[in-house]
Amino acid sequence: MKSKTDIQSLYFKYVETTQKAADFNNAAALLDWDQEVNMPSGSATFRARQSASLAEYAHHLITDESYGKILQQLADTTFLSESQQANALLSLEDFHKHKKLPASFINKLTNQASISFQAWTKAKKKNQFSLFYPELEKMIALKRQQCDLYGFQTHPYDALLDDYDRGITTTRLDEIFGEVKTHLSNLLEKILQKPQVEDDFLYQAFDKENQFSLSIEILKSIGFNFEEGRQDYSEHPFTTSFSPQDVRITTRAEQKNFKGLIWSSIHEGGHALYEQGLPTDAYGLPLGMPASLSIHESQSRLWENCVGRSAAFLKYFFPLAKQKFSTEFEQVDISMIYKAVNKVQPSLIRTEADELTYHFHVLIRYEIEKALIAGEIQCKDLPTVWNELYNKYLKVVVPNDTIGVLQDVHWSHGSFGYFPTYSLGSFYAVQFFEAAKKENPTIEQDIQIGNFQLLLQWLRQKVHRYGRRYSSDELSKLATGSELNFSLFMKYAREKYSAIYGFDVN
Amino acid sequence: MKSKTDIQSLYFKYVETTQKAADFNNAAALLDWDQEVNMPSGSATFRARQSASLAEYAHHLITDESYGKILQQLADTTFLSESQQANALLSLEDFHKHKKLPASFINKLTNQASISFQAWTKAKKKNQFSLFYPELEKMIALKRQQCDLYGFQTHPYDALLDDYDRGITTTRLDEIFGEVKTHLSNLLEKILQKPQVEDDFLYQAFDKENQFSLSIEILKSIGFNFEEGRQDYSEHPFTTSFSPQDVRITTRAEQKNFKGLIWSSIHEGGHALYEQGLPTDAYGLPLGMPASLSIHESQSRLWENCVGRSAAFLKYFFPLAKQKFSTEFEQVDISMIYKAVNKVQPSLIRTEADELTYHFHVLIRYEIEKALIAGEIQCKDLPTVWNELYNKYLKVVVPNDTIGVLQDVHWSHGSFGYFPTYSLGSFYAVQFFEAAKKENPTIEQDIQIGNFQLLLQWLRQKVHRYGRRYSSDELSKLATGSELNFSLFMKYAREKYSAIYGFDVN
Repeated sequence: MKSKTDIQSLYFKYVETTQKAADFNNAAALLDWDQEVNMPSGSATFRARQSASLAEYAHHLITDESYGKILQQLADTTFLSESQQANALLSLEDFHKHKKLPASFINKLTNQASISFQAWTKAKKKNQFSLFYPELEKMIALKRQQCDLYGFQTHPYDALLDDYDRGITTTRLDEIFGEVKTHLSNLLEKILQKPQVEDDFLYQAFDKENQFSLSIEILKSIGFNFEEGRQDYSEHPFTTSFSPQDVRITTRAEQKNFKGLIWSSIHEGGHALYEQGLPTDAYGLPLGMPASLSIHESQSRLWENCVGRSAAFLKYFFPLAKQKFSTEFEQVDISMIYKAVNKVQPSLIRTEADELTYHFHVLIRYEIEKALIAGEIQCKDLPTVWNELYNKYLKVVVPNDTIGVLQDVHWSHGSFGYFPTYSLGSFYAVQFFEAAKKENPTIEQDIQIGNFQLLLQWLRQKVHRYGRRYSSDELSKLATGSELNFSLFMKYAREKYSAIYGFDVN
Repeated sequence: MKSKTDIQSLYFKYVETTQKAADFNNAAALLDWDQEVNMPSGSATFRARQSASLAEYAHHLITDESYGKILQQLADTTFLSESQQANALLSLEDFHKHKKLPASFINKLTNQASISFQAWTKAKKKNQFSLFYPELEKMIALKRQQCDLYGFQTHPYDALLDDYDRGITTTRLDEIFGEVKTHLSNLLEKILQKPQVEDDFLYQAFDKENQFSLSIEILKSIGFNFEEGRQDYSEHPFTTSFSPQDVRITTRAEQKNFKGLIWSSIHEGGHALYEQGLPTDAYGLPLGMPASLSIHESQSRLWENCVGRSAAFLKYFFPLAKQKFSTEFEQVDISMIYKAVNKVQPSLIRTEADELTYHFHVLIRYEIEKALIAGEIQCKDLPTVWNELYNKYLKVVVPNDTIGVLQDVHWSHGSFGYFPTYSLGSFYAVQFFEAAKKENPTIEQDIQIGNFQLLLQWLRQKVHRYGRRYSSDELSKLATGSELNFSLFMKYAREKYSAIYGFDVN
């Protein structure tokens, strides 16, 4: 029997090791950020080995048997506070999961990821799927092996989903995407019967510097803390964090697309607000980490869509935009821009899709991933499958693989199970936003005058501060009274888009 | 007895561990670079612990007993190639040196450095030496202890000097600075009897962006590889490197001082060319590291002074500068700018000193450090000692401690023994430059047309490629035929400054 003092000193040891691992992971994150933002083109070779060394050592620390023994002892005691216990149990869960993958397997996975990524880059550039699929095939074989190593109840894909959103299953996703297929398809059909909204004015020449400085202004007003974060340029926008006190977002400027930088910046800003809202006193521990990728995405989508594409926000934002772009927006009023930034139009590229058709892009990937992992479709048939599904759900014809099956980097990295969190996040976003407005009825009025405090406070209080303490659905239940409820998203979408496109809401 | 295969596999293990340690040190260097260049102001707390974790683990790797055993076995064998042996022996030397400082002592040193640095920052800001000296006193006590732990033959200060330039001693420095005192004082006296050169035109308003882009142009032409490096802004200019393929320099722009950014940039560029010239195949190993801080400084000073402040360089450079600053330099010709950037004038601040008086700043610090470490002077008396020495050697009156004894950060960090390398570097610089010109008589003509290839090739061939294989003086002997010869510097200085100030060279 361990005394309370013994246990507390064991807990201290656990914290020390876990936070040390976080130091190495966070340093590795800085190396990655630097690679995207600053690193000269010829510096990749040594950078790769440095990143690998940091990741490897961090992994070593949290998979060491002595670490597991400490966790086991902490799990069996009653001497810990509630949050200490939560940390220890979550870390023990992680430990067991990590131990399921032998180091040799992780090496294989890492190597294959690097090879597949290179093959994908080349294949996408040359529009030649055949250059990619032999390497993708090997990657999928490894992912199937990973499912077996992890173990699963019903569907092997469940094992992979769990990495991105603890506890989510194909059973649940089939339900949700089933509703997407029925209800969202229905709504989309109604929209497409209506005359299209005008948005040509979004594609004039907008000075890039002005777009950037406008985005900084918006980030400041939604509450991004620039004393503990920054925004830079990179080829693909992303958010990363080296501690809750150092959160970095990136963006990309396109002169001829006003919808690009601003809403991407708000999206990453939403991710960043979450990271900045994680408790500093749980640095590196489960309670200091984000709940799941779905919840992470709920924060970015809430700010990007529920807030950023709302009429209330545009009332605040558009006058600011007009100050910077008076000539470009001379003939544009709020109603016009509101419609334009909410234009719904089936398209080929996921990252450029609107708020509604986006989920069909995700659905397609979900169906393909599930089938690939189950061994129900062959790699070489992917272009055909892809193009058929795009035709089925979005009624678009895919002209080539570069902007078809080769558009996303995820599969080359072996990130199977990631895509669904994009949709889940969007659906949680609406649910959170509605709950926040219900509790704080002035939120929408506040947004009109650029005051986002009540909303941010609600998110801090109901979502951010818990870290990984709860699963996505537990958190949703605590914050909104129920688990993920897709009908709330449909209600929001119907109300919004029936008004924009002019049809009856029912 | 180990077989040749055993030895090669031991050597492989040695390389693996040493390069792994380099990965962590280089990652830590990126964290430091980021801190100076990008990091938001509120992010310091977690960054500090991340840096510490990386440094600690790197240190652990190369002080582990098993690592020492491998090195010992490699040292005792004849199965290694010449360069393998050089690596192993140098690493064994490092290992023994590292082992002399117990972890508890290093902790004390690191903690005291952080405390002393904070005290120094405050003291400098408030011009109050009393806020600093109690912490400096503790630092000096630790450095004296470090001398005892390292061991020394003649003077305890020798033990510290060795950290920055292997094998250099107070005996040798006394000789060199003895010559500085006699010969350089003499030259300085002659200069100061002459009318001062005009340089007012260097202190107009020079657009900062233009200064920066001019420096980029110069860096490109001297051979800095921007595919494997970059220049950014920071408060204090510095050079760092994460591999020979990722070398970063920083600079600072002052609108009202044309001498600031450009020559600081060339100086850091010289450091950077050295780092970029280190052999990539010895990454992280002694033969992939710089020879010493003196040799490092010789590279920066060679480019900054021997090249950058030469008439030949100005013939190439000044037309470029005039393109950017046509109004500012309308009335200025090459002879005027040549004299202006070589103006000699005793002053208070080391980092702003000219090429000649600079060495009295170093001499003063050398004398003080030696006496402090020997316990011959007391910390609290430092301002008096400092002011007396500035009066003695430079005939200047120090008005306050902020720009006097508190001007440099080095002592707060515990960097005793560092300053002398600044002077040694300058003296080696001249010696290398003269040897390069002797072997390649067209170098000076080439410089006039902005062609620096022959010079860079010579440095690559004679200095850069050897890494740490030779000590400073061994390298000098190989490259120039003799160890450091101060009279070459004096000859260079006499010829240059007698022409500028108009007096007889003898």
